[in-house]
Amino acid sequence: MRVRALWYDRLGLHLIDQRRLPNARVVRTYRKVEGVAEAIRTMVVRGAPSIGVAAAYGMAIASQQRGWTPTRAAKLLASTRPTAHDLFVGIEAVRSAWTAGEDPVESAHWYRERIVAECQAIGEVGAPLFSKRTNVLTHCNAGALATVEWGTALAPIRVAHDHGVDLFVWVDETRPLLQGSRLTAWELAQEHIPHAVIVDNAAGYFMLRGDVDAVIVGADRIARNGDVANKVGTYEKAVVAHENGIPFYVAAPFSTFDPRMPTGAGIPVEERGAEEVRSLGSRRLAPGRSGVRNPAFDVTPSRYVTGFVTPLGVIPPSRVRTIRQMGRTT
Amino acid sequence: MRVRALWYDRLGLHLIDQRRLPNARVVRTYRKVEGVAEAIRTMVVRGAPSIGVAAAYGMAIASQQRGWTPTRAAKLLASTRPTAHDLFVGIEAVRSAWTAGEDPVESAHWYRERIVAECQAIGEVGAPLFSKRTNVLTHCNAGALATVEWGTALAPIRVAHDHGVDLFVWVDETRPLLQGSRLTAWELAQEHIPHAVIVDNAAGYFMLRGDVDAVIVGADRIARNGDVANKVGTYEKAVVAHENGIPFYVAAPFSTFDPRMPTGAGIPVEERGAEEVRSLGSRRLAPGRSGVRNPAFDVTPSRYVTGFVTPLGVIPPSRVRTIRQMGRTT
Repeated sequence: MRVRALWYDRLGLHLIDQRRLPNARVVRTYRKVEGVAEAIRTMVVRGAPSIGVAAAYGMAIASQQRGWTPTRAAKLLASTRPTAHDLFVGIEAVRSAWTAGEDPVESAHWYRERIVAECQAIGEVGAPLFSKRTNVLTHCNAGALATVEWGTALAPIRVAHDHGVDLFVWVDETRPLLQGSRLTAWELAQEHIPHAVIVDNAAGYFMLRGDVDAVIVGADRIARNGDVANKVGTYEKAVVAHENGIPFYVAAPFSTFDPRMPTGAGIPVEERGAEEVRSLGSRRLAPGRSGVRNPAFDVTPSRYVTGFVTPLGVIPPSRVRTIRQMGRTT
Repeated sequence: MRVRALWYDRLGLHLIDQRRLPNARVVRTYRKVEGVAEAIRTMVVRGAPSIGVAAAYGMAIASQQRGWTPTRAAKLLASTRPTAHDLFVGIEAVRSAWTAGEDPVESAHWYRERIVAECQAIGEVGAPLFSKRTNVLTHCNAGALATVEWGTALAPIRVAHDHGVDLFVWVDETRPLLQGSRLTAWELAQEHIPHAVIVDNAAGYFMLRGDVDAVIVGADRIARNGDVANKVGTYEKAVVAHENGIPFYVAAPFSTFDPRMPTGAGIPVEERGAEEVRSLGSRRLAPGRSGVRNPAFDVTPSRYVTGFVTPLGVIPPSRVRTIRQMGRTT
């Protein structure tokens, strides 16, 4: 059974509550745009492509509520999280359709289908990168949960595994919210793909030993020069991979590329609350008197990226500037 | 009040249980060498210099128990953890005295005094590295808890802070056992030294932004060529610091230098249990079906080290080979 992060029917938008995995599989249903916005903000749903699709359905739901205009709904949903470009693309896809008098629900469906198809294509395009026995390291969760189905970083891994390639996946646990150990490991375990969870600190140890043949990650936003915003820690992995001559791939659908952002310097990096670092559940990890800084993302300069795995092929950073804005009418 | 990790009196060896900090300050008392060995193995006491002193007192305690010879006690204590060189130096300091008919308790006291004096000297030697406003990053806990008093990496920070220098400390939380957020932050909070806890993944983010002026860490074992075994994650910090032109210092007493180890390739790296990664308290972090790898240390090649802060001065990696074995009679 393939994992699916969300789906929509006449009862509303259904989201797997990703905060509860792997200990419980809880599905939450939303019938109001305010609820969808809150679910994005509090990370019931996360992962740039999934956020974009959830926001698209949030727009569709708003169109069925009293008192909401396309502009007002777009503004609410756009205020939830600042970094992932897909959020704005998903909103815009439905906003423009709604404004033009087209069916917002159909538009959201179309957007979801496009993201899923692009992720499937990423799998086919990227699988040949792992055509022989490969130990591949990934950071955070760029799997089906992050992208509705298939995944970005995990899509080529899934396809190569389906083709019978002997793959082994190193899963960075990805503090503070543990999307690696909670979500990526859960997806891989569902599909019996061999893997081991490691603390983020151990990635360098295994790279230096020669136990990592390639790194592949997803992205939250890619600037025109190929700089990549992704989950905090990605930059460290990219630098250490580069230092060890290990190829470093970034897999993303077109919605993650931001042609209006010249370089990574302009990408807003969300800083989240201290409690994500200071506590885990009811357990306190650091003294209450200690300060905390909690950037959720970092920006990896394009020189550390070997290639971008897109739905239409693997391209070097220098070719990112040729990608046009997806999901815009102009 | 200065923090002290352990002390000895006629009731036995008293250890602050470092697994319980910062939520509770629990002191455990040991009157048998078997108990001391178990306390080292289970990390009631940790940090290479503190482990060495605890083992020295473990030898002294064994000398007062029936049926223990210097050789047998040394063998038990040496089997507890493989990486820290100080463990073997502390054991040997008392073993040789005991074998020679000297007082093992006096010998253990002497060893403790020497470690504390060396750490204090490291503070004086290293403080001028931070003579003006500095944002310094540290990994794991190389404070008083790790070294009985003062610390290695934290000693220069303490001394510079006492001298009125405007220091700010970035504290890597240091998964899996969180020695940074639990112990280093606790020590810094006790002494009102400004600091912020960050997840290990965020160190690179702040380095790339220019928010880190220097990195200083302790060590578990230093090979003759200057390769450094230290808490897992140290290697990643060293590479990223190097990439950003940030000086990377390693502070250690002479007991941490292993003149019989030509390079880091020969240093045994302890691999600890999966549950340290898979669970935190009663909370499960990763699926039970997922594999886990948990190396407790990594080895940073000497080319990433700007200087070693020793009790007798700051030296480059090329001069490490001039350091003689400490605590041996030959």
